[in-house]
Order: sequence, then structure tokens, then C-alpha cells
Amino acid sequence: MVTDMSNSRNFELNCPLPISEYDRVLLAHGGGGTLSRKLIQEMFFSQFGNDFLLTEHDSAMLPAGKGRVAFSTDSYVVQPIFFPGGNIGDLAVNGTVNDLAMAGAIPKFLSVGFIIEEGLLMEDLWQIILSMQQAAERAGVQIVTGDTKVVDKGKGDKIFINTSGIGWIPVDVNIAPQNCREGDVILVNGHIAEHGVTIMSAREGLEFETTLESDTAALNGLVAEILAVSKNVHVLRDPTRGGLASALNEIASAASLGIEIEEEAIPIAEQVKGACEILGLDPLYIANEGKLLAFVSAADGPDVLEAMRSHPLGTNSAVIGRVIKEHPGTVIMKTSIGSGRIVDMISGEQLPRIC
Amino acid sequence: MVTDMSNSRNFELNCPLPISEYDRVLLAHGGGGTLSRKLIQEMFFSQFGNDFLLTEHDSAMLPAGKGRVAFSTDSYVVQPIFFPGGNIGDLAVNGTVNDLAMAGAIPKFLSVGFIIEEGLLMEDLWQIILSMQQAAERAGVQIVTGDTKVVDKGKGDKIFINTSGIGWIPVDVNIAPQNCREGDVILVNGHIAEHGVTIMSAREGLEFETTLESDTAALNGLVAEILAVSKNVHVLRDPTRGGLASALNEIASAASLGIEIEEEAIPIAEQVKGACEILGLDPLYIANEGKLLAFVSAADGPDVLEAMRSHPLGTNSAVIGRVIKEHPGTVIMKTSIGSGRIVDMISGEQLPRIC
Repeated sequence: MVTDMSNSRNFELNCPLPISEYDRVLLAHGGGGTLSRKLIQEMFFSQFGNDFLLTEHDSAMLPAGKGRVAFSTDSYVVQPIFFPGGNIGDLAVNGTVNDLAMAGAIPKFLSVGFIIEEGLLMEDLWQIILSMQQAAERAGVQIVTGDTKVVDKGKGDKIFINTSGIGWIPVDVNIAPQNCREGDVILVNGHIAEHGVTIMSAREGLEFETTLESDTAALNGLVAEILAVSKNVHVLRDPTRGGLASALNEIASAASLGIEIEEEAIPIAEQVKGACEILGLDPLYIANEGKLLAFVSAADGPDVLEAMRSHPLGTNSAVIGRVIKEHPGTVIMKTSIGSGRIVDMISGEQLPRIC
Repeated sequence: MVTDMSNSRNFELNCPLPISEYDRVLLAHGGGGTLSRKLIQEMFFSQFGNDFLLTEHDSAMLPAGKGRVAFSTDSYVVQPIFFPGGNIGDLAVNGTVNDLAMAGAIPKFLSVGFIIEEGLLMEDLWQIILSMQQAAERAGVQIVTGDTKVVDKGKGDKIFINTSGIGWIPVDVNIAPQNCREGDVILVNGHIAEHGVTIMSAREGLEFETTLESDTAALNGLVAEILAVSKNVHVLRDPTRGGLASALNEIASAASLGIEIEEEAIPIAEQVKGACEILGLDPLYIANEGKLLAFVSAADGPDVLEAMRSHPLGTNSAVIGRVIKEHPGTVIMKTSIGSGRIVDMISGEQLPRIC
């Protein structure tokens, strides 16, 4: 069933041949025979097609790049698979592109592994493929190798997607959590918590006055702008699962330094704040899919902030805190009434299957 | 429940801390909080630990290699997850190592993405992790980046694993299905159909007089021996899903050449032949997980055969056929009574969830 829930489902409703024969994915589509080939050729190759993929080898054979290689993987199990602002397909492309970009790499090539539950609507699969290809084009990456498995009904949940990615890290770039330094300022590129709150609202069937949308986006273009204005970018991190709080805690722990953030400086949209109150969620722990944290030297902070604000994905960028030598491994938030609150990692799961 | 079904489950029964607290995987183990970190650090890092992985970055940052980059991905959904001769863990490592080796690459780095169903026994996960690390060591690769998702009970099937891999293709190596040439001889490194028949037997609860075992193994060492004795290796292919028949058909089609094989030359163990008869399966279409097909110039055939037979994974190697210019895209098998049978691709699924 196609709904109008997601704007990424509207752009193309013509589907190639497989749907005309089968309106749902069968176990046989994952069996390695002619039905598998048909699915791959008519649906995947027709969209993802490039010389590397079309070699149809067991591996893609890619040109070597300069500098170090960044390599990352993520599986996506988000539920529902279509949501306002995106779907599991563009989320899977953007997420792995972002993981590469957070290492300062220029993302180049993606693999995609589908685990499909028997019975998935072929039309849903097609919309997901189209979104993936569009997301790949926007991010400037190519999908060069892939794999499809089909599991019996009741042994999966519509579709899970793994994307892995390769990028080249320029020789003069050295970004890692351990590089965080005392005095660094911490910037974020806009409103937090939008992805997680959107998913939870969609799942609970909640409707809000204003439209909530996932912030899913590829951040490699924004990272390029940041790296163009500063040689003192020490850490980049996208606060996905576990949100801002978990990302900051991981970095504080990796660098053995303290982090201090200011509650009032953290950009958050009013409707997200409202939705969090209704859902009983703390926005600091909610997943983002188009946000990054940049740790840069205090001297370069203003230039980086300006560069971020000039980018379409950074118009609401802000400095939200700084790195200190006190209380290593701990994140403290100065609240609006002036007190300090320890922002701990959560132990478990606030939002299952958010990405 | 630990059974003695697989010999890869016996080597280590001590499990680190997480099991003492939780005997099953919870949704919270995939939530990005402290429970996730504990699982990752105490179970994954304790086994897979290496400098690349322990950087705990969004991407692994790897040294560049020489020559082209091979990049491959596969998801594993095999059922049951433990079977005679292996489990889903070593299968996942060997499978992606083999895909890289089939491009003539030297496999170097793997990513691993777990999709775990809530309730998986922590001890089963631990056995799988141990097997993966042992398989990685045997193959000479490092697991450098990973991801863990947990889905609610009934929305998965114990565990699915994606592995992606990177390897370097030496500059003088050029192996691809399209490189197949008229006159090439086709070699296989031993008995076919063992993996698929083992899985089906385990699933059906069949017991045979002799012990059936999956042939899961990393083939990169064997490939190195082959490439050391011949500069005229044109195609390498591991006949996994869809078996020997599908792999040969894909190559005949990619190269627009005909393939002729001889039934009597194809190595197959007696107990596998017997099991196939009982299960009603054609061994030509059954998955292998430790076999490769090598297409080499006729002149180099004897040297390659000798090199293969000298390797522990190739003692039963044989020349099974040749490439001809007649009937392009088609595979013909000369049967033992001298007639010719077209070996087609199967349309659907002979064996679901075989890998």
C-alpha cells in the first residue's frame, strides 16, 4: 500500500517488470536462480547501474585512492520502513556516508545487503531502491556491490538493509575521538532529536500541529566546507542512536577529558520539544540522522560556525559547549537556571529500532 | 542450548562477563547505551580487538594498499545457525573472504553487522564470535569495524550477519567472468554440494551413516597457490547459492561462450550423492562454501591442477570441463552414457536460507 506519508515515495511510480509478474517478494527471489537474477537486473541494476556493479563479479574492483582508506558498516532495521522525511533506503545510504565523513573521509563507494521478508510488496522495494539511488547521487557515492537474501514470512520484518562504505581520507586530515583537546569548542549543525521523535510519532500514530520530519541527510558536503576553513578540526561525530548525550559521553571517555554543554545553546525546534514532552522522552538521548558534532580549536570556532551556517544543512548551527580538563570522562550540562547536571549515558534503550 | 552438533562450538566454553549478567540478548543491547557498550567491549572487542577496531571511530581508518581495491558484501541468514562443520559466524567470514579472493584480491579487512533477535542466547552469540575470530585468523584478515542491531522477538530469526570486505588486487592480476576464453579448462577444488546437503540434512533431522559436514573454508590461500603457478587464470568463482550449475551459467552468459562439462569428472562424495537421492536434490544446484571454479588456459591446466592438489583444500581437485565457442551462454553436460544434457539455471529456490 502506498501512502503519502513520505515525500520520498512520490517521485516515481512506474515500476519495471518484476512487479508486473509478482506483486510481492517470494523466497525464490533470494534463491540464486533466474528469479534472483531478474530481481537484481531489472530492479537493482536499472537504478544503481554503474561499470563497477555491472561487472557482476563476486567483488567490485575499484580504483585505488590517495591517503588512508575509511571503511564503515551499518545495518538498518528502522520501523516503520517509510516515515515522514525519508525511508529505510535513503536512511541507509545517508547513515553510512555520514560514518565515513565523520572520519574526515571523502565517501566514494557503498555496498548494499538486503534481507527481505517474504511477502514484502514489490512496490515498496522499488520505492526504497529509488530513494537509495537518489540519496547516493546527492551524496556523490556509487553503489558498487550488493547481496539479496529472502527469509520466510515471520522470520524478518519487511526489510533490513546493511550498507558498508569506503572513502579516502586525505593525507592532511586526522580526525578521531582521541584527538579531542582541552579548550576545543563543540558545534552542532542544527536542531536535534528530529529523526527519533518523527519515528516514535509515526509508530504511535501521533499527529502534531506542525509537521515533524526526519533530518536524514548526507553530511559529507558540510564536512568538506568545515575542513576547508579549519585545519584544527579534531573530532567529528554524528549523534545517531543514543543521541547527543551518548555521542558526547563516548568522546569524553575516549579522550579522558571533561565536556561542558549549555542547555540554552542546544538548538531544538519547538514542536520537537513539545512532542518529547508528550512522549516522555529526553531530546538529548534521541537519535539524529542529519546532525554532526564538530570539536574544533577555540580560535577556529567562529570561522567554522560561519562556514556551517552558510551550508543548507547548517543554517541553525550553534556552539553548544567546550572541552575542559576537569571531571574527565564526564559530560556536564549547565541548565537554564544555572545549575550543573551530569548527562550520563543511558543504560538501555529509549527507542528501539530507530535506525 | 549448546549441542555437540558442530565441532566449532567446542573450543572455548568460558564466556566473559555479559553472560553472567544476562543469559539472553535484550533489546537494550542494541540501544546505543551502556548495555550496548558492554556487549561490544566485552564480547566483540575481547575477541576481534585490533588497533583499527579499538579506535572506536565511526569508520575504521586503514592503510592504503597497492593496486585496485576489491570490495564485497554478503548477508548470512542460514538456518540452523549451528550445523556440522561450522556455524553462521565462520560461514560469514569465509564467504566474504572468498568473494574477495575470487577477484584475485588479497583479502585484508572485514566489517561485521549483526542483526540479533531479542532473546538469542548470549552463549550462542559468544560461540559465533569465537568462530568468527578463529576464521578471521585462519584467513589472515582483521575485523575492523562493526554494528549491532537488536530487533524484537518474532521480527528476526536468532541472528543474521552481514560481512563486507576489502582486499587489494595485485597490479598484474586481472580476473573477471568476462575474461573467460575459448579453450579454457575448468577446474574445481574438490567434492561438490557438501554445504547445502549438510544444511538440509540438519534441518530435516536426517542422519546418515557417514558424517556429512559443510565444506565452509577460506579459499584465499588456495587462490594464492593458483596465481603463483599461472599468469593465465581468467576467471575464479565460488559456486555458492545455486551451486555449480548457476555459477557456470552466469559465466557462460557473461562471456558469451559455451561451457561443456563431463558428469563423470565432477568430484562428489558417495554419501552426498546418497543424501541427494533421499532428499530429491540435484547436486549440481546445491550450495558449496569452500569450493572454487578456476578457468585457466589449457596450457596451464596441468600446473594449476597440480598446485591445487598440493593444497589441503584441493586434494580432490579435478578438471571438469572446458570453454567452447559453440552454443554461447549455454552449459552442456556430457553424461556417463554419452548423451548431452543442457544444464540450465533453476528459476527459483531449491534450498532456502542455505547461507
